[in-house]
Amino acid sequence: MSQIAFIGLGNMGSGMAACQVRAGHSVHAFDLSAAALEKAKQAGCEPARSVADAVRECDLVITMLPAGPQVREVYANEIIPNARAGTLMIDCSTIDVESARAVAALVTQHGFEFADAPVSGGVAGAEAGSLAFMVGCEVGQFSQIESALEPMARAIIRAGDHGAGQAAKICNNMLLGISMIGTCEAFALAEKLGLAPDRFFEIASKSSGQCWSLTSYAPWPGLVESAPANRNYEGGFATAMMLKDLKLAQDAAAKSGATTPLGAQAEAMYALFDRLCGGGRDFSSILQLLRGQLS
Amino acid sequence: MSQIAFIGLGNMGSGMAACQVRAGHSVHAFDLSAAALEKAKQAGCEPARSVADAVRECDLVITMLPAGPQVREVYANEIIPNARAGTLMIDCSTIDVESARAVAALVTQHGFEFADAPVSGGVAGAEAGSLAFMVGCEVGQFSQIESALEPMARAIIRAGDHGAGQAAKICNNMLLGISMIGTCEAFALAEKLGLAPDRFFEIASKSSGQCWSLTSYAPWPGLVESAPANRNYEGGFATAMMLKDLKLAQDAAAKSGATTPLGAQAEAMYALFDRLCGGGRDFSSILQLLRGQLS
Amino acid sequence: MSQIAFIGLGNMGSGMAACQVRAGHSVHAFDLSAAALEKAKQAGCEPARSVADAVRECDLVITMLPAGPQVREVYANEIIPNARAGTLMIDCSTIDVESARAVAALVTQHGFEFADAPVSGGVAGAEAGSLAFMVGCEVGQFSQIESALEPMARAIIRAGDHGAGQAAKICNNMLLGISMIGTCEAFALAEKLGLAPDRFFEIASKSSGQCWSLTSYAPWPGLVESAPANRNYEGGFATAMMLKDLKLAQDAAAKSGATTPLGAQAEAMYALFDRLCGGGRDFSSILQLLRGQLS
Amino acid sequence: MSQIAFIGLGNMGSGMAACQVRAGHSVHAFDLSAAALEKAKQAGCEPARSVADAVRECDLVITMLPAGPQVREVYANEIIPNARAGTLMIDCSTIDVESARAVAALVTQHGFEFADAPVSGGVAGAEAGSLAFMVGCEVGQFSQIESALEPMARAIIRAGDHGAGQAAKICNNMLLGISMIGTCEAFALAEKLGLAPDRFFEIASKSSGQCWSLTSYAPWPGLVESAPANRNYEGGFATAMMLKDLKLAQDAAAKSGATTPLGAQAEAMYALFDRLCGGGRDFSSILQLLRGQLS
Repeated sequence: MSQIAFIGLGNMGSGMAACQVRAGHSVHAFDLSAAALEKAKQAGCEPARSVADAVRECDLVITMLPAGPQVREVYANEIIPNARAGTLMIDCSTIDVESARAVAALVTQHGFEFADAPVSGGVAGAEAGSLAFMVGCEVGQFSQIESALEPMARAIIRAGDHGAGQAAKICNNMLLGISMIGTCEAFALAEKLGLAPDRFFEIASKSSGQCWSLTSYAPWPGLVESAPANRNYEGGFATAMMLKDLKLAQDAAAKSGATTPLGAQAEAMYALFDRLCGGGRDFSSILQLLRGQLS
Repeated sequence: MSQIAFIGLGNMGSGMAACQVRAGHSVHAFDLSAAALEKAKQAGCEPARSVADAVRECDLVITMLPAGPQVREVYANEIIPNARAGTLMIDCSTIDVESARAVAALVTQHGFEFADAPVSGGVAGAEAGSLAFMVGCEVGQFSQIESALEPMARAIIRAGDHGAGQAAKICNNMLLGISMIGTCEAFALAEKLGLAPDRFFEIASKSSGQCWSLTSYAPWPGLVESAPANRNYEGGFATAMMLKDLKLAQDAAAKSGATTPLGAQAEAMYALFDRLCGGGRDFSSILQLLRGQLS
Repeated sequence: MSQIAFIGLGNMGSGMAACQVRAGHSVHAFDLSAAALEKAKQAGCEPARSVADAVRECDLVITMLPAGPQVREVYANEIIPNARAGTLMIDCSTIDVESARAVAALVTQHGFEFADAPVSGGVAGAEAGSLAFMVGCEVGQFSQIESALEPMARAIIRAGDHGAGQAAKICNNMLLGISMIGTCEAFALAEKLGLAPDRFFEIASKSSGQCWSLTSYAPWPGLVESAPANRNYEGGFATAMMLKDLKLAQDAAAKSGATTPLGAQAEAMYALFDRLCGGGRDFSSILQLLRGQLS
Repeated sequence: MSQIAFIGLGNMGSGMAACQVRAGHSVHAFDLSAAALEKAKQAGCEPARSVADAVRECDLVITMLPAGPQVREVYANEIIPNARAGTLMIDCSTIDVESARAVAALVTQHGFEFADAPVSGGVAGAEAGSLAFMVGCEVGQFSQIESALEPMARAIIRAGDHGAGQAAKICNNMLLGISMIGTCEAFALAEKLGLAPDRFFEIASKSSGQCWSLTSYAPWPGLVESAPANRNYEGGFATAMMLKDLKLAQDAAAKSGATTPLGAQAEAMYALFDRLCGGGRDFSSILQLLRGQLS
């Protein structure tokens, strides 16, 4: 049984912390929100009064925070100064690669081990313990990081050294955003050309247009049972979260000098959609923007 | 054994005609090029002196021509006036939906049966008889069309009524063009972020970024054995052909009133690439444009 | 005094025909719409019963029709067969360059003189006789064409040989569409950055961002008195008309092999806007799409 | 006569400092490069050994630095701690709005006056003292800032409060980048359609496509005497600098929530061009990318 400090109990973090509890670990949880803390308590966590308080007696720290600045701040000012020697630190937030590498450098410089380990799988995956983790860490550390993440995971893949986990997440999700808009455009064009959506789905799923956005998450209702399109685009992966990831990708492209014209356009389209409709609905609902059917 | 008129013996048509010969049919072949005719003869076809000559004694006509205007012209002026009653006519060219529907209307008005049946699978598929056909025809005609195409096919799917075959091809290939550029952008960004291509490939292939362009046709060398990236982008599906299909898609979108922003951008990027490098190399080599490594 | 046949009495054509009446010419007007014919009669035109009827006794034919197919059809089947020798024919429609050149070839082959002379200036310019004409004609014909257009014109510029008038219109309007969206994006960004619109207007009007869309037609209300932005985006140049011109530009680019990535994106954005809001409002109202304020 | 500290003596800064010398001021100049310092000495500046040394006895500090982080760092650690009371501080760098506002807050908090005053006009304008300044400052401070900038200026416009100068520069240059690509696309399309560039230039300059990129800086040679197109695209405003400004614009759009699809595409196109050709040539040479004529 480990002593785990879990920092950040939002939609994702609360489910992940509960998985660790169910695996038999002692979880010292902290969040700025009292409601989140209360919910964590009910899930079997021990609520802490501060990050410092949560971290102090633990051998594993897991963070799940909104963006790079918070991660930098919390590690520099609260986790590192209060952790005891030998603590393993894993950041599961989705943040910019630069921040991930800066935090890794700081953490290791203070003698701790670190991994960036952003996830995919959404709120449902967090609750079910079936997330996929993309891990950036030193080779030699991977097996202990794998063990630490195991109660929350369906898959754990090492992407490379520090920062590579974030890089993998950003690159994957940029491709996802592009593929989804492409899939929606194809459905919108098929409709106008008098090609039935189910026919297009069947043909393209077996052809060179096949992609996860089509086959596993079809944006047109009635084609993939589990897809948000069948639940009025509720739940799933919110437009605002996709937009956040596309912004991270474009920021990384601008800073690193990569050329990503469709990534740029995907960000612009999701920004427009977010402005018009709020960012709450599943990202596959951008189909309705293209069809001119905003409700 | 059928008597088949095969009109259009280019890279695709010559292989397809040979498949029909191997299936035991008598193939009366015609092309404007003497060299193409000679090659067809060596493959076992009977060279005809004209379309009229090829068509006259046949019960099946298959056409494989470059674009809509040629298809309209050949059916109106040469095939229909010379075919005998009961001849089945199948156009396997990739052309605009409008032309396909116009030809279908003309053909059926003269009492013949018609299908638009564009293919995917490339020159290799044409030679091996392993093409996928997307068929637009009346429901009741599908089984005889299936039989007629069988010697050239790996898969034959009915997309809907006349024109639906072309619509399916165009929608699928627009999505393919978008997915391929998206995949290339993701590799280009991964490279700049210090994420190894094989790591990105492994992770995204199992994640939401998965698509045929990545998993079955990876544009980065060393990842998918059969991909043109491993043969210096030779063979495969030429950039110029992808550009042709993207132009058909944008033309169809403009005329039908569909909104396809990434499709438009994909066309622009392939047009730029075609201008800079000629259109001969496989379409996955657009990776090199994004990486700034035109040779 | 000339005998003028005026074919096509829509929003633009009716105003233009009236200008010719006011200049003292005898105008034989035709349109398929009885209401349009009646309106032309009230403006002093002589209503004709058919194109043939209008054309027969005239020395000048002016056409103002919706698109290339109509222009091709009317010249081939109605104007050329009925015109008397020496008739000058001017097409003021905005159509594709290919059609303009095909009609020019047909007309001159029958011994008549021809010019393509699309206009800019909108309905207001048509009524006031202050249109700008972009003329494609043989050099030696320009002065008589200039005289013929003069009653409707503020400016008449020869763009080159047949088709060049349409080419100039298409290139200019593609640039206009791009500049307008660019201007709207700049206002939308300025707003978010806390830069007052009037400050941005004053600065950019004197700087390298200056363009007609900003300085003469500002999309933000309160900056340019005559701009549609001050009349709730009513009147002006309708979104649907801009979309039509951008489609002509993209079609021309695809057929000629030009690379126009921002032109493609401008078409996609106007197509989206047209889908969401109908195409009736002035094209500068795309500002509201970008600001997420569709009403 | 003022005592001026001038920090940052690159291509722009060296010319600007020399203007202040010519206006009779005593200029204490600093740069990390010894060569730049030596050049400033020859222009009549007094070389300082450090920022602190330059700042200490001055009543005006002008900074001209590459990017936000440097500006933040130099003000926080070197200028503010060493300036005497009453010193006016003006940052002429082009940086992100956020940094400009952060520095303004820090400077004013320490009791000094501040303005962000980025410029347009290029190296030639810096040397000739004919720059345009876009100023963000408190209203009451504008007249003394105007006086301080006057020796380097052709035009000085107040854009608003702190940060508004940077916002104006970014918005203007985003529009410039879009207009330039739009202008180049229009020339490229005109060429393919057989419309002579000088004819397009003359027509569009008088029509709704008019913009500074066309009329004052035409990217096609032989049309505007002073344009870099006539000097093989040497000198002028380098592609790399335009790309920098477009990145600032996209970063600002992402952070502020503005929707700028053409701005995003312009950044992507300049990023691609920069990758392919280096960023040294004038930004109007992107015409050659579109024409497929990279040398």
